[in-house]
Amino acid sequence: MRPVVGVGMVGYAFMGRAHSQAWRSVDAFFDLPLRPAMVAVAGRSPEATAQAAEKLGWAHAETDWRRLLDRSDVQIIDLCTPGDSHAEIAIAALAAGKHVICEKPLANTVEEAEAMATAARAAAERGVRAMVAFNYRRVPAVALARQWVAEGRIGEVRHVRAQYLQDWIVDPEFPLVWRLQKDKAGSGALGDIGAHIIDTAQFITGERLVGVSALTETFIKERPLAESSAGLSAGGGAGRGTVTVDDAALFIGRMSGGGLASFEATRFASGRKNALRIEVNGSLGSLAFDFESLNELWFHDHTLDSAEAGFRRVLVTEGAHPYAGAWWPPGHGLGYEHSFTHEVKDFIEAIAAGTAPEPSFDDGLRVQRVLAAVEQSAADNSRFTTVEGS
Amino acid sequence: MRPVVGVGMVGYAFMGRAHSQAWRSVDAFFDLPLRPAMVAVAGRSPEATAQAAEKLGWAHAETDWRRLLDRSDVQIIDLCTPGDSHAEIAIAALAAGKHVICEKPLANTVEEAEAMATAARAAAERGVRAMVAFNYRRVPAVALARQWVAEGRIGEVRHVRAQYLQDWIVDPEFPLVWRLQKDKAGSGALGDIGAHIIDTAQFITGERLVGVSALTETFIKERPLAESSAGLSAGGGAGRGTVTVDDAALFIGRMSGGGLASFEATRFASGRKNALRIEVNGSLGSLAFDFESLNELWFHDHTLDSAEAGFRRVLVTEGAHPYAGAWWPPGHGLGYEHSFTHEVKDFIEAIAAGTAPEPSFDDGLRVQRVLAAVEQSAADNSRFTTVEGS
Amino acid sequence: MRPVVGVGMVGYAFMGRAHSQAWRSVDAFFDLPLRPAMVAVAGRSPEATAQAAEKLGWAHAETDWRRLLDRSDVQIIDLCTPGDSHAEIAIAALAAGKHVICEKPLANTVEEAEAMATAARAAAERGVRAMVAFNYRRVPAVALARQWVAEGRIGEVRHVRAQYLQDWIVDPEFPLVWRLQKDKAGSGALGDIGAHIIDTAQFITGERLVGVSALTETFIKERPLAESSAGLSAGGGAGRGTVTVDDAALFIGRMSGGGLASFEATRFASGRKNALRIEVNGSLGSLAFDFESLNELWFHDHTLDSAEAGFRRVLVTEGAHPYAGAWWPPGHGLGYEHSFTHEVKDFIEAIAAGTAPEPSFDDGLRVQRVLAAVEQSAADNSRFTTVEGS
Amino acid sequence: MRPVVGVGMVGYAFMGRAHSQAWRSVDAFFDLPLRPAMVAVAGRSPEATAQAAEKLGWAHAETDWRRLLDRSDVQIIDLCTPGDSHAEIAIAALAAGKHVICEKPLANTVEEAEAMATAARAAAERGVRAMVAFNYRRVPAVALARQWVAEGRIGEVRHVRAQYLQDWIVDPEFPLVWRLQKDKAGSGALGDIGAHIIDTAQFITGERLVGVSALTETFIKERPLAESSAGLSAGGGAGRGTVTVDDAALFIGRMSGGGLASFEATRFASGRKNALRIEVNGSLGSLAFDFESLNELWFHDHTLDSAEAGFRRVLVTEGAHPYAGAWWPPGHGLGYEHSFTHEVKDFIEAIAAGTAPEPSFDDGLRVQRVLAAVEQSAADNSRFTTVEGS
Repeated sequence: MRPVVGVGMVGYAFMGRAHSQAWRSVDAFFDLPLRPAMVAVAGRSPEATAQAAEKLGWAHAETDWRRLLDRSDVQIIDLCTPGDSHAEIAIAALAAGKHVICEKPLANTVEEAEAMATAARAAAERGVRAMVAFNYRRVPAVALARQWVAEGRIGEVRHVRAQYLQDWIVDPEFPLVWRLQKDKAGSGALGDIGAHIIDTAQFITGERLVGVSALTETFIKERPLAESSAGLSAGGGAGRGTVTVDDAALFIGRMSGGGLASFEATRFASGRKNALRIEVNGSLGSLAFDFESLNELWFHDHTLDSAEAGFRRVLVTEGAHPYAGAWWPPGHGLGYEHSFTHEVKDFIEAIAAGTAPEPSFDDGLRVQRVLAAVEQSAADNSRFTTVEGS
Repeated sequence: MRPVVGVGMVGYAFMGRAHSQAWRSVDAFFDLPLRPAMVAVAGRSPEATAQAAEKLGWAHAETDWRRLLDRSDVQIIDLCTPGDSHAEIAIAALAAGKHVICEKPLANTVEEAEAMATAARAAAERGVRAMVAFNYRRVPAVALARQWVAEGRIGEVRHVRAQYLQDWIVDPEFPLVWRLQKDKAGSGALGDIGAHIIDTAQFITGERLVGVSALTETFIKERPLAESSAGLSAGGGAGRGTVTVDDAALFIGRMSGGGLASFEATRFASGRKNALRIEVNGSLGSLAFDFESLNELWFHDHTLDSAEAGFRRVLVTEGAHPYAGAWWPPGHGLGYEHSFTHEVKDFIEAIAAGTAPEPSFDDGLRVQRVLAAVEQSAADNSRFTTVEGS
Repeated sequence: MRPVVGVGMVGYAFMGRAHSQAWRSVDAFFDLPLRPAMVAVAGRSPEATAQAAEKLGWAHAETDWRRLLDRSDVQIIDLCTPGDSHAEIAIAALAAGKHVICEKPLANTVEEAEAMATAARAAAERGVRAMVAFNYRRVPAVALARQWVAEGRIGEVRHVRAQYLQDWIVDPEFPLVWRLQKDKAGSGALGDIGAHIIDTAQFITGERLVGVSALTETFIKERPLAESSAGLSAGGGAGRGTVTVDDAALFIGRMSGGGLASFEATRFASGRKNALRIEVNGSLGSLAFDFESLNELWFHDHTLDSAEAGFRRVLVTEGAHPYAGAWWPPGHGLGYEHSFTHEVKDFIEAIAAGTAPEPSFDDGLRVQRVLAAVEQSAADNSRFTTVEGS
Repeated sequence: MRPVVGVGMVGYAFMGRAHSQAWRSVDAFFDLPLRPAMVAVAGRSPEATAQAAEKLGWAHAETDWRRLLDRSDVQIIDLCTPGDSHAEIAIAALAAGKHVICEKPLANTVEEAEAMATAARAAAERGVRAMVAFNYRRVPAVALARQWVAEGRIGEVRHVRAQYLQDWIVDPEFPLVWRLQKDKAGSGALGDIGAHIIDTAQFITGERLVGVSALTETFIKERPLAESSAGLSAGGGAGRGTVTVDDAALFIGRMSGGGLASFEATRFASGRKNALRIEVNGSLGSLAFDFESLNELWFHDHTLDSAEAGFRRVLVTEGAHPYAGAWWPPGHGLGYEHSFTHEVKDFIEAIAAGTAPEPSFDDGLRVQRVLAAVEQSAADNSRFTTVEGS
């Protein structure tokens, strides 16, 4: 019989639902060294948390995340709350000897992220593991892209072209939800979705973004107050409040390998729903991905004769592809939530093997530093700004 | 507290894994009137069945499907075995007052399918429900296509163009697995995947296929014996055996509304992995779908000025789309297995509401009759053959 | 100085405009052994023909095609009239020692086509050349597909999937133009566009279609009389006339190499404008083409590892691609009319070299026989009908 | 009889071939107020120019462009030489009362462009017309995009995402041709192809780019000397020379309407041949175009219910589309060279009507100023740099 690893999750909203599905499914599809048990979920409201526990399949409900740290049947803390709470909980959990998987962005500030990364390094020496949940790394097509770049298939990276395009706030009457308020969300499109393409670009290329030049914009400056934005009316007119985050962030930069990179994160790309796109052009080939067609990776082999070459649509559903063999026969596509299932699978395996899971808190910190450089450049006339530590 | 509905599954191979994931997930995403409990799985081998139960999340393992009928904690029988066993089990289960969801094809012969349909009609009078698991109906894009046709969006149906293209036996050295043996599988590409496009075409259009003209072919007549095909060597040379099913089936036909239809089911379409494709052209518009891009439905609105019109890629991930709202935000795609989750969701709701679930055993019988007409036409010089009961 | 070859064109409507552009352009892009001179165009109306000559760049206008045969400065007759006049003109021209390039379909009946093919064979012995203008063979992507099949890239052909989809008569109030009248047009979608996919399929595969099973339909039986359909009112009600040709033709068949083929020609595919599509699946690979994206050929190499493989979009604009090198740099696409320019280029070269141009009148006859087999099958309960001479 | 307008072309390389095809074809497809006559082509080498004249269809060959200005049968000067000669010739031609159509970029420096724009304004007062040949404006899909934006279909412009991706110098052994030398070419990817996307973005949106932040890079610093780069060896090692222009230019900027824009011009995008791409996201909809599929415009109508909406592939081949009606029936695509034909058609019409053709030399100057701002920003640490006169 395999040992059990108990999981305690903090938060049960969008991310909590996705992570729950991962914990619920992972053992049925992968041969894991440890059997995950969905021990408890923590939230503030006793009623809502109990309901969530029942709905999402957690055995217990706790109304204080600290209670999860006290439980001996919990070895993993899964952190699904907004970024402003990450540092406190994660650091405490690591100190308590719990492995931590933490939603992105790692934190809302570089300072917090640094503290977390320091805590993670210290914990690692005690065999306690920490991972930041950039789930898109575990989309099979993205993992395959990384593998092929690492194998040298595209040669030296010349260009990275990354976009994360959404359109859910195009309507100026869309209300001032918490994600549009700086004190709660940290930043707007930049931290929410820009963080994903920064990590994905660095992951696929195996390189770092060394500096950026940026523009940000808030197209709609005031929005109707949402129920959840009560108390903000001082900032706006009657019933309206001020949007305090960016609607869109564009930046260009240089990669550590000498290539150029272009990034765009926006919530104003009408018609684009969740278009996390990345194309990498190298000296020997190119790769292209669009999450709106998540089971496809496009590959151009530049070593072929030009009369033969072209972008090839690889359906990343073959047994030999990352993660895909655990699921269904070729051509039977996976969906969004599978990236989370793959994430917890890798986390469990790292814990069992005593190895460092990736992306680490240091990887999360690196993304945080890029976000900071973007904001600094945007505030300084788009001047090229070096990413700290790169 | 909601009442529990206990499920007993027969078979735990490919389909059993897919159905298990559906039963495991459905309650976390949909608000169901009954709470499904994964009571028991039945298989022949005690060891393998016990392993499957643990892996797939079933509380008990039974080594005889009849034991499931005896259990008072089982109200639903989920039939995931090959087609030759469907009639016996389904009819017994219905007689025992168990609701039955049965994998497709309903049976291997029209006679068996008729007996099953008769049993289902009788059971329905006692409030016992039966459903055949044509899962592709529950892909959100396919369900949306049906909805739009029903709303009159494409007008009168002129053309149906349906293909199910795979390529897993292109290699002549691929072994003689059971799916290539008529006594076990009934037919080849025709019954396995042709059945899906027949049902999908009839479902989306809301029409019946009234007659067909067909060609079938077996490109590779002999194949190496697989371990599982031992004992067949009399049929082939040393170590090879005869393929006794079709590799591909093509047929053209007439729809009950006056349109023309074209169908192709093949396992020899190199490079096409699971390309269940259907395009419907109507007097007011057209719809197109390809399962290899399962989150997309393409719609052409022919009532627009021609300078404005064009096929529109609708990402079927909006809250207002069938099933999609239960999952993730727009643009976050679903995968293959979700079709099964939607299937059991609808089945549970029908049971609770006391209504007839669809597709019914009669729908399954109708598909069986089309398959029979195809085989008859192919054997009779492609002569146009009327589908019985159409 | 290169010798001049004089061209006389008969007809100046749609095809005449396309051919004129070919004659006007070909010498500027290709290094030809003979310099084409646009000597004269023939038509019935003196005024309209003179206008066409001026507009399209012909030096003279003739009002009787026989006058072109008399001219010693004309060596090539370019036949752009409807099919019912082809036999008479082409046979006379060949007898007069003129090379003939004749629009498709070669004729409206098998009998006429046979007479033309006989005349062409006789003329060839005297060094007089004849060619039928299946222009789609000269789309670079189609020519490349043929080349790759001939090189064995896709191995044995298992499937041909050919469609020619248009939508210009979806509206039931579209008038009864001559193309919808059997006495003038011979047939409907079948001969007009079905002929193209039959030739393209046979050209790319290098095989013949040996037999077919067919369905045809006329969805709209009566249409408003067009000005040009005056006198037809006896056939319809007041102001309406009967459509006497097919609106759509579907057929399935067998190729000479043992593969199966599916064809669909229709003018009722709402939203499809000129979708001449063909996919060929072979034992070693597949090719796919859609004229609506005419500069692309999709190629799947089935000899690659399945984890690497996928359909590859080859932009057929490289210098090494058929015809493309004569035009623009890679990625600068060509259009519809270029297929005609390539056609006359090959024709001029064959004349100069004293070789037999392709497609020959025999190729045209072969297509005619397939059309006849389709009509015969459709009239005989879709019975499988062998193509004469195949 | 229509009056004749005589054309004299300077230069007969790539652009000269394209323009010749335009002059040769335009009168056959459009009903023009003036009949263009291809009077003479000018070049330096008597032999080569005579050959070009014969090949491309010009009646005369001149070995000095000044001779064209002297000819009374020439009313239009078509300038197809590299940018460094534009100012001298164009200004002289305008002074001589010749209408001028000038290839892009208007000039190699802002100063030259200013002098040309001044000359053009002065000439306009005398009824003499000048136009810069940004041919991509006349691709029907691009013209349609402009039309729809002008009609308000996409509302306020939020994002412009423009790329011009090529790959012809990815190979480090590709020689040091003149386009890679600053003294001859002015700049690299920036001026050659970046100029096109700047103009296209400003044209489609009807807005100006007001400021930019830029990065440029030369990935391959030295290349083998080409025959045409003899004498450069001092700059490199034995047989190699220094590349003195950019290989790629990335810039982000702000549009005059408040939107953000991203641009990328590169010759290092392996697998992208001539991918001039632009997407514009507005408050009411979006448009997307890729020249590699030049007959398509993608349109998302954001005013539709989100369950209905999606990017729609409009084949820009309808009679009601810009330019398209003059050519072939719907679905019969056009190619690269047609953009030039449309260009000279519009130029002839403007001359006849006495109106100002677009894009004007002022438009060309505006692009030149953007290029200058890009270079300035790139040289100044990517600082946001305002475009002069914007």
